Amino acid sequence: MNNCFLEACWGRPVDYTPVWLMRQAGRYLPQYMAVRSRCTFLELCKTPELAAEVTIQPVDFLGVDAAILFSDILTPVEPMGLKLDFVPGPVFENPVRSMADVDKLRIPDPESDLPFVLEAIKILRRELSGKVPLIGFGGAPFTLACYMVEGKGSKDWSGIKRMMYAAPDVYCALMEKVTMMDMEYLNAQIRAGAQAIQIFDTWGGILSPADYERYVLPYTTKLINGLNRTETPVIHFVKGSGTMLPVVRKAGGDVVGLDWQINLGDARNMLGQQTAVQGNLDPGVLFAPNDVIEREVKRILDENAGRTGHIFNLGHGILPTVPPENARFMVECVHRLSKR
Amino acid sequence: MNNCFLEACWGRPVDYTPVWLMRQAGRYLPQYMAVRSRCTFLELCKTPELAAEVTIQPVDFLGVDAAILFSDILTPVEPMGLKLDFVPGPVFENPVRSMADVDKLRIPDPESDLPFVLEAIKILRRELSGKVPLIGFGGAPFTLACYMVEGKGSKDWSGIKRMMYAAPDVYCALMEKVTMMDMEYLNAQIRAGAQAIQIFDTWGGILSPADYERYVLPYTTKLINGLNRTETPVIHFVKGSGTMLPVVRKAGGDVVGLDWQINLGDARNMLGQQTAVQGNLDPGVLFAPNDVIEREVKRILDENAGRTGHIFNLGHGILPTVPPENARFMVECVHRLSKR
Repeated sequence: MNNCFLEACWGRPVDYTPVWLMRQAGRYLPQYMAVRSRCTFLELCKTPELAAEVTIQPVDFLGVDAAILFSDILTPVEPMGLKLDFVPGPVFENPVRSMADVDKLRIPDPESDLPFVLEAIKILRRELSGKVPLIGFGGAPFTLACYMVEGKGSKDWSGIKRMMYAAPDVYCALMEKVTMMDMEYLNAQIRAGAQAIQIFDTWGGILSPADYERYVLPYTTKLINGLNRTETPVIHFVKGSGTMLPVVRKAGGDVVGLDWQINLGDARNMLGQQTAVQGNLDPGVLFAPNDVIEREVKRILDENAGRTGHIFNLGHGILPTVPPENARFMVECVHRLSKR
Repeated sequence: MNNCFLEACWGRPVDYTPVWLMRQAGRYLPQYMAVRSRCTFLELCKTPELAAEVTIQPVDFLGVDAAILFSDILTPVEPMGLKLDFVPGPVFENPVRSMADVDKLRIPDPESDLPFVLEAIKILRRELSGKVPLIGFGGAPFTLACYMVEGKGSKDWSGIKRMMYAAPDVYCALMEKVTMMDMEYLNAQIRAGAQAIQIFDTWGGILSPADYERYVLPYTTKLINGLNRTETPVIHFVKGSGTMLPVVRKAGGDVVGLDWQINLGDARNMLGQQTAVQGNLDPGVLFAPNDVIEREVKRILDENAGRTGHIFNLGHGILPTVPPENARFMVECVHRLSKR
């Protein structure tokens, strides 16, 4: 059993720095595209055997130290009562705009509403059979609320900000419900066998640190406190949060995810040496020639300066046009250059 | 003469905190839309009388302490040899992809190639007649190069990153030429009467701090060093740079622009008390009711804690759907709450 990833999550010494890539199962891999050509994106998420197949692909191809369940952060929002489609970006037919809309939302029962996710986890634990640990995941309440209110991606997220500022009662009621959903959903993933949980707050960084602390932190804190994490470390990733890591830290969790806009050494100093970190190579570096990839991997390992509690990753999802062999070379560099 | 803005740029004591808004002349104002309905965006940029008219509109309506020339950062790139259109985002018909493309670029002569910009500045100095100072501006070399290489806006800017990493000779040759163009262009604006210069590096924050320092900082430093700024302060704004302000500071310049992702007090501590700052209200706050706008203005003034050298602004351009009266109320709050 390769326990390197979990040991690093707990801040314990490891023989080399573990590495995985956000969105490592995805469009940049021809073997993923082959599966994807036979079904829609949502069908892939909802078919446990297929989801398990594409989850394992990058483990074999890249040689990473963890698998992450193939799914989408919006999957559990659909059984809350919002009709979801991908065109290819996510679109909700009936976004949340009023208290009446919030009242209509239901908290799904993961076992009956999202059985395909739990089934995929069980298949994966069997098929991985201890090869590498399996990470489950969910969107942070704020990021899910962003999509639920806007109905789709946005450049300026003015809809959610307008609600947050002008209708705080509606905003809070929505965030409460999403937090409860998330708690049920992620605990079900843990029960099904997920060995770590990553919480993705892709849009937490669109707020000022003061507004993040006022409008987001209470909900993420409540969520993390509500997870059964005795044996399951929680990675909390807020994209664009390099300027407010001490605030993000307050949410709890075992590992703080870092995007590439911050020097990793600076981040560790801001967080304190007790907090494990995950990151933080610019996904764009995977377009570079091998010597630059190696230089940048080395820079980040140097910035970490041999401290325990570092999981190597990109600072955001791998880009769809990256050559797969560059990703594999990056993984090889991390292992080679970090060998104790 | 309202000299408050210029005094604050120089870090001198002022009676109240000066304020202006990035993109204050623009689509959120009905009086702007009225002018714009009679011509294209590029025609507006290229007709000095109209550019001057829309430049003055927000000075009258909002009561801000500075006017900023109405133009676009890509205006001077067209006479370099790239065909520019707005659809409505900027598109270059013939983007820069090779050394041959870079070799073909010429350095425009501002007096003969961009006379409309200099003429607009002269009209504005006359019409403003000392009411408020006039800010000229340009895009930072990196941000201009981003558009010149991609040919348009991008989500991941993989084209410029690929060139930067894989063809550094082409990248450096391009950056050198853009830097020279910028220097000529901004010095011509100063000669024509611009009383301050803002350099917009909208995309500098897409790089890691290490890559920013390696690939961007040398050019911005060269540009700022080449400006005749004895009597003309330079504001350097790198969006997304809250995690690397000490690096941004190295470029020189008199004022560092801040986006809203950082606590203003933290920023001043990172920069040192000698460096004036500009910012940093979340543009989304202008969708909020008055009490929230006032609360957020007060928070930022409190974070500055009465230090000299603060110009109030948004952390990025005003959004097109903001109610104009909210922007006016924000300006009124800044003046009222900062009165010494």
